[in-house]
Amino acid sequence: MAATKSIEQLAIGILGGGQLGRMLIQFATSWNVNFHILDPDPEAPCRELAKHFQVGDLQDESTVYEWGKQLDVVTIEIEKVSVAALKRLQAEGVKVYPQPEAIEIIQDKRLQKQFYQDNDIPTSPFVLTETLEDLKRYEDRFPAVHKIGRDGYDGRGVQVIRSKGDIEKGFDGPSVLEDLVSFEKELSVIVARRPSGEVKCFPAVELVYHPEQNMVDYLLSPARISSQAEEKAQQLAINVIEKLDLYGILAVEMFLLPSGELWVNEVAPRAHNSGHQTIEGNISSQFEQLLRAILDLPLADTATRSKSAMVNVLGAPDHEGIAQLAGWDVLLRESGVYLHTYGKRITKPYRKMGHVTILEEDDEQLAAKIQKIKAAVKFVSKV
Amino acid sequence: MAATKSIEQLAIGILGGGQLGRMLIQFATSWNVNFHILDPDPEAPCRELAKHFQVGDLQDESTVYEWGKQLDVVTIEIEKVSVAALKRLQAEGVKVYPQPEAIEIIQDKRLQKQFYQDNDIPTSPFVLTETLEDLKRYEDRFPAVHKIGRDGYDGRGVQVIRSKGDIEKGFDGPSVLEDLVSFEKELSVIVARRPSGEVKCFPAVELVYHPEQNMVDYLLSPARISSQAEEKAQQLAINVIEKLDLYGILAVEMFLLPSGELWVNEVAPRAHNSGHQTIEGNISSQFEQLLRAILDLPLADTATRSKSAMVNVLGAPDHEGIAQLAGWDVLLRESGVYLHTYGKRITKPYRKMGHVTILEEDDEQLAAKIQKIKAAVKFVSKV
Repeated sequence: MAATKSIEQLAIGILGGGQLGRMLIQFATSWNVNFHILDPDPEAPCRELAKHFQVGDLQDESTVYEWGKQLDVVTIEIEKVSVAALKRLQAEGVKVYPQPEAIEIIQDKRLQKQFYQDNDIPTSPFVLTETLEDLKRYEDRFPAVHKIGRDGYDGRGVQVIRSKGDIEKGFDGPSVLEDLVSFEKELSVIVARRPSGEVKCFPAVELVYHPEQNMVDYLLSPARISSQAEEKAQQLAINVIEKLDLYGILAVEMFLLPSGELWVNEVAPRAHNSGHQTIEGNISSQFEQLLRAILDLPLADTATRSKSAMVNVLGAPDHEGIAQLAGWDVLLRESGVYLHTYGKRITKPYRKMGHVTILEEDDEQLAAKIQKIKAAVKFVSKV
Repeated sequence: MAATKSIEQLAIGILGGGQLGRMLIQFATSWNVNFHILDPDPEAPCRELAKHFQVGDLQDESTVYEWGKQLDVVTIEIEKVSVAALKRLQAEGVKVYPQPEAIEIIQDKRLQKQFYQDNDIPTSPFVLTETLEDLKRYEDRFPAVHKIGRDGYDGRGVQVIRSKGDIEKGFDGPSVLEDLVSFEKELSVIVARRPSGEVKCFPAVELVYHPEQNMVDYLLSPARISSQAEEKAQQLAINVIEKLDLYGILAVEMFLLPSGELWVNEVAPRAHNSGHQTIEGNISSQFEQLLRAILDLPLADTATRSKSAMVNVLGAPDHEGIAQLAGWDVLLRESGVYLHTYGKRITKPYRKMGHVTILEEDDEQLAAKIQKIKAAVKFVSKV
């Protein structure tokens, strides 16, 4: 492919036109790349940036197939897409990275867990449940985490079941019940792999969760872990991407246990929230790496340039409506603070509306800046 | 203005839709800014990125006025625009930064030189010429540089007149004849100033010219000069922007003489080729600074993050036609090397088609990378 068409001539499709696609296009403006976006929302964040933007259902086989058949390369920014369409496109010679077989496994948290088990990839113990009735049979496993098999996202579709009294919060459909892991840290490693065989990881980052929202509260890069743990985390990410036989990028979220063991939590076969700080913090960004991987180009240098933190900017709890950013005054007065808004017209409580990357070598200063940004920066509805 | 409308609500116009506008939009995607572009070329580099793109003549008063009258803020990425229209817009309350009065002086190299003289800003000695006949009267000043008053760009409209034999190369119209300066280095300082009064410089950079093309061959950031020279260069840039009473950003190109004196060569009241390396090399880029200045927001931290070089990527001498980049293999294998192509469909000999920024702390390595990039990376016409 790269031999017959130049990079600028390729028609590259992205299933999904959200913030991940938007940041990919923003980067790739520097390479003059020709993107085709499919998204159900006519107001999706990519709408004005993509050279070609089509409104359509990502899960509808014929929509995805018809959209994709004229393209050279297709990638995703969301897993909830028609795998059947992608398989047809692949069979007809379109390069589909990540491959549909890997998306199919990752789409379903039950298949994901079984995949880890089948491939000796360390992960928390689990059982599958089909109904809420099933959940009652596993009381002895509580406290545990109940996850819906398909279509969960951003904390929706995940419930902590602490005791019998929480059973009602569980899911009355195909789900997986995982042991609640007492971990020291939650880490994420973004690993890239390209068809020619090259594999490369970004340094591990550390995810700090918000206790109530069950979403990443902020992230530290690089993770504050030993060099042995770093090496082990990268090896684990490489192991997963190779076992999945995936080309593209894969975010591997993992738990570091007090014993030093690493267990895979979940993976995402695309650009990921835990890689946003690479835009300013690393030699190359996850978006550049994704583009290189799917075009089978030499992978980029992933080294850290600066210590950084990444804070998600969410919709304020009590606001729903036309979005407006609060906190500009704080953002604009701090040095090394980078705002990324996603161009979403409507804000909703806890909706991911943007993020802020903070570059700061001094730990105390960094902590202070994180708190300052978190307190001030959010989306409210326009008055 | 900033008090009544939020940043996302402002309609910001850019006169010109070339690479400077394109890189501004690319940056401002992170802020979700609403740009309106006017450019005569329906295939201008901004055509697909701008939310609003209108084809029209930048020098036609009524075109510019009609386009601009619905906007909140208007800026430029080229000086060759209708100042009369901008004055009308300004009178009607549109914020025009840089102000038309400053553009008017800078548009004409004769007025520029007189402005320096009138304001005690050091610059090379000069005389004005009206015709080629005039030039003959100034033989005793040769070698000298003849510059056309208006409408020169990128080395066009500039001729070195070494001796009588070169007179024919001069311009038979309103021009300025400047003494040829024996300088140690050519520097550029980009300075920003906003209506609230704040002024801030980027560190000086060093321009290395190509001997034949009379264009910047590559640029080093920061300039290899003493801290005294650095301070003096920044003071000079501040002096010029204040004397011009300009809001926005101003690139001040200057000569460092063997005596240590600094003379202003030329200025540009907009983002400038000598600031492209700020995208990766500095805490904030010239594009972010421009946006902050024209919106009267606190100016950004301009500090250098990494030593860098910037190489322009030109159209190859013997190629004209549909553009295609040569040298991807070299670009993709070097670490810390950042390509920016401008999306120009047609390549022409020596046309500015893109640039490459190289981050490298080691001088020898940096020199080697510059040569490697320069040798390999260019635009050819598609076969």
